[in-house]
Amino acid sequence: MKLYTYFRSSSSYRVRIALNLKGVDWEPAFVHLPKGEQRDAAYLAANPQGLVPALEEDDGLVLTQSLAIIEYLDETRSGPSFLPKDAAGRALVRAMAQVIACEIHPINNLRILKYLKNPLGHDQETVDDWYRHWVQEGFDALEPLVASHSNGRYCFGDQPTLADICLVPQMWNARRFNTDLSAYPTLLAVDAHLQTLDAFARAAPEQQPDAF
Amino acid sequence: MKLYTYFRSSSSYRVRIALNLKGVDWEPAFVHLPKGEQRDAAYLAANPQGLVPALEEDDGLVLTQSLAIIEYLDETRSGPSFLPKDAAGRALVRAMAQVIACEIHPINNLRILKYLKNPLGHDQETVDDWYRHWVQEGFDALEPLVASHSNGRYCFGDQPTLADICLVPQMWNARRFNTDLSAYPTLLAVDAHLQTLDAFARAAPEQQPDAF
Repeated sequence: MKLYTYFRSSSSYRVRIALNLKGVDWEPAFVHLPKGEQRDAAYLAANPQGLVPALEEDDGLVLTQSLAIIEYLDETRSGPSFLPKDAAGRALVRAMAQVIACEIHPINNLRILKYLKNPLGHDQETVDDWYRHWVQEGFDALEPLVASHSNGRYCFGDQPTLADICLVPQMWNARRFNTDLSAYPTLLAVDAHLQTLDAFARAAPEQQPDAF
Repeated sequence: MKLYTYFRSSSSYRVRIALNLKGVDWEPAFVHLPKGEQRDAAYLAANPQGLVPALEEDDGLVLTQSLAIIEYLDETRSGPSFLPKDAAGRALVRAMAQVIACEIHPINNLRILKYLKNPLGHDQETVDDWYRHWVQEGFDALEPLVASHSNGRYCFGDQPTLADICLVPQMWNARRFNTDLSAYPTLLAVDAHLQTLDAFARAAPEQQPDAF
């Protein structure tokens, strides 16, 4: 199984965690986003959408979109389940993941920050403010949702779920942009616990061979 | 079952389609977003996140995030399934839905367009260009993905899936901003077919009691 990945890509980071949690034997294929390698002919042949991450199954099937990939891994690989057994629990965990994946991350993606600079002409300070604004607005919604279900170690229940897989990369990103996280004690506690787990630690950007 | 909805909210539109497809008996509770009713105390008591849509189950459970709500309905209600039976098919349909829900819609949400005007100071033309740019970038990725799986009537397979449920509202939005859609023949054909189906037609913004 091959993962097209970039060390700093938050959605790649999510899939790396999921692969590690499932104990899947995977090899990385590095796609350097700032250099534009996602638009290289070689990459587009494997994934015409030109997005990262993409997961290539041993039979050649190429899957995209991190949440879809993670649920696919959950459905096809043994190991701990990423979703609760009951429908209400699954809906809550998916909602937590989607606050991050649909309300925070897309607005702060590299291509958006680039567009704010050119053509919109904003400086780095304005871009950084934009970044922090949407992280905080999203975390303002996520903190009470997680706090009402968390034991302080996981977002929901007593093992890592899809919500935890999304939380850790988003916290990493928030810190990179010096976001004030003091209003989110539950998210901070859960993130601190998750970072002690091997599957999360090995997936961290700074641990990847393509990190610089 | 009660749906907190706003006629023009694209993610509410998705859930209205899903409820109709399942034949669920639901009542709407209208939340007027431009008036800021999502921040009213009465609404926050039901949904502390202050987001629309939210689905309130008969037992009082409140669920948020449209994709999570739609999968919950699929798992708990009889009627046609919104996802294929095989894991690869499910991953493809979820990826199609997520191109819309994670790559297009969040960047063009009302709150983002408002922020571009204030504090960033952009005029309506720049905001409209922003809107169309991200729709087209997303549809550039979605068109080949759907084209390689579609029969020209549905995004995938021979019945409506989560992908179709997301496509129709996004096409409606794209037209509202006069987006050039000529480069997306498959998406246009699928959208045209879906609009002939009663469950989709009844969910349209202009058919809602709160439309003006």
